[in-house]
Amino acid sequence: MKTISENRCFGGVQGVYTHPSAATGTDMTFGLFLPAEAENGAVPVLWYLSGLTCTHENAMVKSGAQRWAAEQGIALVFPDTSPRGEGVANDSAFDLGQGAGFYVNATQDPWALNFQMWDYVTEELPRLLFNAFPLEEGAQAITGHSMGGHGALTIAMSFPGRFASVSAFAPICEPTRSDWGRKQFTAYLGSDETLWAGHDSTHLMRRFGFDGPMLIDQGTSDQFLDLLRPEALAAAMTERRQGGIVRMQKGYDHSYFFVSTFMEDHVDFHAQALRG
Amino acid sequence: MKTISENRCFGGVQGVYTHPSAATGTDMTFGLFLPAEAENGAVPVLWYLSGLTCTHENAMVKSGAQRWAAEQGIALVFPDTSPRGEGVANDSAFDLGQGAGFYVNATQDPWALNFQMWDYVTEELPRLLFNAFPLEEGAQAITGHSMGGHGALTIAMSFPGRFASVSAFAPICEPTRSDWGRKQFTAYLGSDETLWAGHDSTHLMRRFGFDGPMLIDQGTSDQFLDLLRPEALAAAMTERRQGGIVRMQKGYDHSYFFVSTFMEDHVDFHAQALRG
Repeated sequence: MKTISENRCFGGVQGVYTHPSAATGTDMTFGLFLPAEAENGAVPVLWYLSGLTCTHENAMVKSGAQRWAAEQGIALVFPDTSPRGEGVANDSAFDLGQGAGFYVNATQDPWALNFQMWDYVTEELPRLLFNAFPLEEGAQAITGHSMGGHGALTIAMSFPGRFASVSAFAPICEPTRSDWGRKQFTAYLGSDETLWAGHDSTHLMRRFGFDGPMLIDQGTSDQFLDLLRPEALAAAMTERRQGGIVRMQKGYDHSYFFVSTFMEDHVDFHAQALRG
Repeated sequence: MKTISENRCFGGVQGVYTHPSAATGTDMTFGLFLPAEAENGAVPVLWYLSGLTCTHENAMVKSGAQRWAAEQGIALVFPDTSPRGEGVANDSAFDLGQGAGFYVNATQDPWALNFQMWDYVTEELPRLLFNAFPLEEGAQAITGHSMGGHGALTIAMSFPGRFASVSAFAPICEPTRSDWGRKQFTAYLGSDETLWAGHDSTHLMRRFGFDGPMLIDQGTSDQFLDLLRPEALAAAMTERRQGGIVRMQKGYDHSYFFVSTFMEDHVDFHAQALRG
């Protein structure tokens, strides 16, 4: 693992690191914020999964999350959203290929070789982080934005007991019925739709739910509302009697101005769950 | 004036606007954050001047300032740092030409034609803003980062009574004795150094001081400390018995991770002065 940068930030350290990944077969870069408390022992950790086109950097510089994580003594992990590089498959569309891993393990050519983001985010990166940094493996929470909200929700429901809480900003809620999902699942997973269900939050909610608190924020002026389908997840949550909060935020759009506005609430929400 | 974008943000609106500028002879773009209170009347305004290489956008997306401005009911203005465009003079160095206006009126070719950032920021843009938006002309404060800290300090001391307070993050404190200053002043203002003095905070502090509170934050691990010369301004401030605070922040560097860490303090500092 190589240190790309370390900057003091809200009394802690915002680091950026690169490492060779067995899952993706490429070098992968991630951001990690460690609060001051990490100097004296392991701290809880909040995963932040980013959306389409993002790298590890977007939320790290735009969301303002470090302020609230520092206040709560919580670490933040910012993984990249896909493998990258010249030898890695790509597409000219912004919503397929590099920057659009969709948090799945691709089985179809040409994607299967490198696009193993599910394994990367749920297995390889956690193992590396808990070995290398003072992070409590028993105190994890997860959040994300848009495609990353989809990732956070599907991962949280697929690993019962791993995450104390899950939240999402404008998540893709029902990718199997959205152009943000059908296109990518066809490319990465093939046309057999039964194999998609494990990557659809609404489906997972109906089937399993989440054994902890949930928080969803969605702007009412989001330019991608039709693709996100929050109504599907909200219906599934209420039908299941899932404990959780869905907030429709009047006038907010899909941007980081929306994410940063509600970041304090999300970090505080997770901190409360992590304190148990 | 043209609206480029408006995003809801912390209960207010983060806008970006473009207008033809008589001062620079180009179109100029700026960011303006209006807190919710602006829907019901004029609000105080905090100017934020950016550093080398920045546009109106950097602080707008990275500093986290809107959170604190919203809490205090204060507007934020984010001007660009220079004129831009194909017909505008430039230099291959990052610290001269476009993105490096240094908040002066250039008198030398080829810069004089467009590089009139002093007039733009102190006359033209204020006139436009106070005409078009609900901003209190009698309740202004000013801050900035690096080259923008230099701009904030020199402008504040040059217009007694205009600003209730001034602050700066890692400002260029003595440009007439720094390579961040001598090079640019030579290019923009010519080699007669007597014409530079009005654009040197340390000189202005010795000569005039500032009729209000001052706050300076400087990271001790700033990679540009030798160019910033905070010791010169700190000495001038103490010699003059200027009311103010200079804080050397242990371990912080020159980045927006530093700026965002202390932004809350700066906005609160200005809010207190603006409430007067």
